[in-house]
Formats: sequence, C-alpha cells, structure tokens
Amino acid sequence: MKYGRFEQQGRVFFGIVEGDAVQELEGSIFDSYSKTTKRHALADLKILTPCMPYNFYCAGLNYLAHFEWASKRKGIERKPPTKADIGYRSPNALCATGETIIIPADSPGPVQYEGELVAVIGRKAKKLSEADALSCVLGYTLGNDLSERGWQASDRTLWRGKNCDTFKPMGPFIVPGLDPMNLTISVRMNGEQVSEYSTSKMLFSAQHYISQISQYMTLWPGDVVWLGTDNPTLPDLKGGDVCEIIQQDIGVLSNPVIRAKE
Amino acid sequence: MKYGRFEQQGRVFFGIVEGDAVQELEGSIFDSYSKTTKRHALADLKILTPCMPYNFYCAGLNYLAHFEWASKRKGIERKPPTKADIGYRSPNALCATGETIIIPADSPGPVQYEGELVAVIGRKAKKLSEADALSCVLGYTLGNDLSERGWQASDRTLWRGKNCDTFKPMGPFIVPGLDPMNLTISVRMNGEQVSEYSTSKMLFSAQHYISQISQYMTLWPGDVVWLGTDNPTLPDLKGGDVCEIIQQDIGVLSNPVIRAKE
Repeated sequence: MKYGRFEQQGRVFFGIVEGDAVQELEGSIFDSYSKTTKRHALADLKILTPCMPYNFYCAGLNYLAHFEWASKRKGIERKPPTKADIGYRSPNALCATGETIIIPADSPGPVQYEGELVAVIGRKAKKLSEADALSCVLGYTLGNDLSERGWQASDRTLWRGKNCDTFKPMGPFIVPGLDPMNLTISVRMNGEQVSEYSTSKMLFSAQHYISQISQYMTLWPGDVVWLGTDNPTLPDLKGGDVCEIIQQDIGVLSNPVIRAKE
Repeated sequence: MKYGRFEQQGRVFFGIVEGDAVQELEGSIFDSYSKTTKRHALADLKILTPCMPYNFYCAGLNYLAHFEWASKRKGIERKPPTKADIGYRSPNALCATGETIIIPADSPGPVQYEGELVAVIGRKAKKLSEADALSCVLGYTLGNDLSERGWQASDRTLWRGKNCDTFKPMGPFIVPGLDPMNLTISVRMNGEQVSEYSTSKMLFSAQHYISQISQYMTLWPGDVVWLGTDNPTLPDLKGGDVCEIIQQDIGVLSNPVIRAKE
C-alpha cells in the first residue's frame, strides 16, 4: 500500500498508488476516506508532498558515522547526544519530488543533502510508551534535509541553514507497515550512488523519539518526524545536479538543483 | 478594527469584534471574506487563537534589557546578536486566551512568561524590502513565549524548553494598522503589573525581521512572527497564577496556570 497526494488541473486529492496507476480517494488519509472509482495514470498527475505538517520535527544528530564526520568537518570535539532532544524545521521549505531545489544566489556553501526516513503521524496521540509509539504512525516517507553548511555555522539559529524555500524535499509516497529500524536508505547524485546506510544504526530509535516527543507535545495527524541521516553527505550540491533519496518500498524522492541568479 | 476567530457549538468562524459584540464573517480573513448579518455577544463565544500558522517564527533575543538579564542569570558573558537570525516555535504549543497553561509534572523549573508582540502575515510574500516589509502584515496580536528555563539550559534544542503543549498562548485578537515599533506591552501576574516595555527598543525592527526572513522564505497567510520580549521575566510561574499580556489596542491575553499532577 502506498498513499500519495496529487494535483490534476488545480484539483488536489489523496490516492492509492498501484504500479503506474493511482486510485483516487475521497476525503483525507489523515481523517477518513473512501475509495472512488476514478483511476489515473500516475504520469498524468503532479505528485505533491504527501502531507502538509503543522508540526515538523527533525532529529538533528541521530547516527554515529554522520555525527563523527560532521564534528571532524567542523574541527570540534564533542560527545554524541545522550538524549533524544528533537529539533524543528519549517513547512515553507517543503517541496515535492520532481520540484527544483533552488540554492540562493548568496549562499556561501557548501550545500549538502541529508537523506532521511520520515515517520508520518496518522492520529492524535499523547504520552505514548515506547512499546506503543508506532501505533500513531500512518506510515513512512523520505526526506532530504538540505543544509547550507556556511549559514549553519555562521548563524545563531538554523533558519537559512536548513529552512530556505525548497530545502526540504519530502515524498514521494507514504507507506504503512514498514519496520522503521530495518530499512536501507540510499542517495544517488546524478545517477551514481553516494551514500547507503541502514536505519538500524539510529542512536535513538523512531519508537524512542516519538514516545519522548509525546510526553510533552500532542502529536497531530499529518505531523512528521524526520529521523536523521548517516554517513558523510558528500559531494556538495551544485546547479545542474539531480539528487535522489531512495528506499525500495517508498520509492525515489528525486529533485533537480539550480543555483538562483539573484 | 479587531479580527478574531471563534467557536460556537463546534462551529468555527472569523469575526469582527465591536465592543462586546462580534459580527460573524463568511470566509477567511487570510483569503477573502464577507460580512454576514449574524451578530453574537462576545461572552457567548469561545475565543480561539486568531490563526493557526504553518510557519511559526520567533525572535529569540530582541531587546537589550532582557538579553543582559538572561545572560547574567545564566552566568555567561556574550555579546548581543548582530544579525536577525530568526528562531522557530511549534503550533502544537499554541493555546487561546482563557485556556489553561499546564506546567508538566516533571518540570524542574523555573517556568517564566515572555510577553511579546506578534506580527500576523496576511498575504504571500517573498523578497520584501525593509521599506515594504509591513505590507504583508494583516495585523498584530500578542503572544506569551512560556519558557521552562531548566530544560532550556539542559537540552540541546528548545523542544521542551519552549514548545510543551499550552506553552504558547496567542491572542486575543488581530488588530491591523498599528505601528509595531511604538507600542507598550505589559504583563500582569495575578492582577499586578510585573513588566512594561516599549517595542521601540527592539534590537532588530519588525520591518527588518520580516524583510530578512522573506529573502529566503516565502511568507504565507497566517504565518506569525513573534518579536521577542524585554525586561527580566519574573516572578516565576506557579500553579494557581493568572498571567496576562496586555496591549491597549489588542486587548488582554489572559491564561491561568496549573501544574500537572502526572
């Protein structure tokens, strides 16, 4: 089962993806829906981000190899996080598969990808135990946590470093029933694989993060929890590149890159 | 003119507040609306947060007296911010005037108020000059940027320190046409004034923040920009308190406080 959100001639709807076809749904996958008899060729539809979250959670440092590489790059000695302190991103930055990542003209660079697994919340939840945490998850999608490393270092917050328009590709689809702790995520740049890692290496599990968040915050349908990335995130992105985040059940989140002229 | 968002028997609508009465609107103040002939007594309606933002911006340190007091409290020497690097809060934490602020049972404390002016975005905007920045603002409301200082110090991010459920009271109404750089904001605890400051003392003006954000991020109708607080934020909040943020044109954002038992 794969859920998606689509646009056709200005009309927005959810659908179930079956191979190259989409069965249109009436209603919302985050509330209630029924299947319609309308079927579309996937190629005839614009794929949108599969949801528009109100609360956009993101685990900043959740894999050891990425943490150690990032620390070395910054020339700092530090210990890995000892607690699942969740971070935030902002919905303005979301874009769908196929949409163009725009590097701002004044970006000092480097700009780098971070391919991530994303848990999509399906029902309102609070104070979940770790054992029960995944019960509120509708399914999983992919995210690319684009990072402007120059601004990440120079600014007091992550605003431009992480949240410029188009810096958060998410999609293509939401797949229920996966084990978030046993998936292989890979990244391709211009058709060549540049990173591959297993989600089994998370420092704090999806279950732990979701349970922790829910102790203090109500989770709402459509909220997303981005679960961090592993490995160095090289090579740097430049105009003309195509960056793809891949997981075999969810599909390919593919985005071309340009650099703005002004 | 004062806009508000209201609920009556499960029905949610925008309205224009005129003294003790509310004229119901059809449509959205963030899109298009028309006046209806329905009038309600304000006392018969539940006042909601005046909007539900997708992007929730918050200036962290935007007044010198608060900055110096906070630095001293933390025992650190630091220079005031030299750039308008915007921070974020999360919509789960929003609550309306009259709703109860709930301090989590395991809060180490202290928990403190921060009374703030809030700019509410009314139209989609990008790359605004500082001179033109306020053209995208629908109006102004008030916010209480509740802060759990223990968690603010102990956590790697501001998740629990700033974003627990109910930690972001906002409202009561949105007032267009105010000069955001010349307002008096005051705070009352249990009926007694504990802080008063002028927004003229912002380190970075509302115009500057909004222009800066818009260089990299599309501003969307309903987004909010909280503009920081001045002064020490004492006394600490405790169960049984009532905390009020006041500006004479916008009104009173009033919230009782309890401490959760578990």
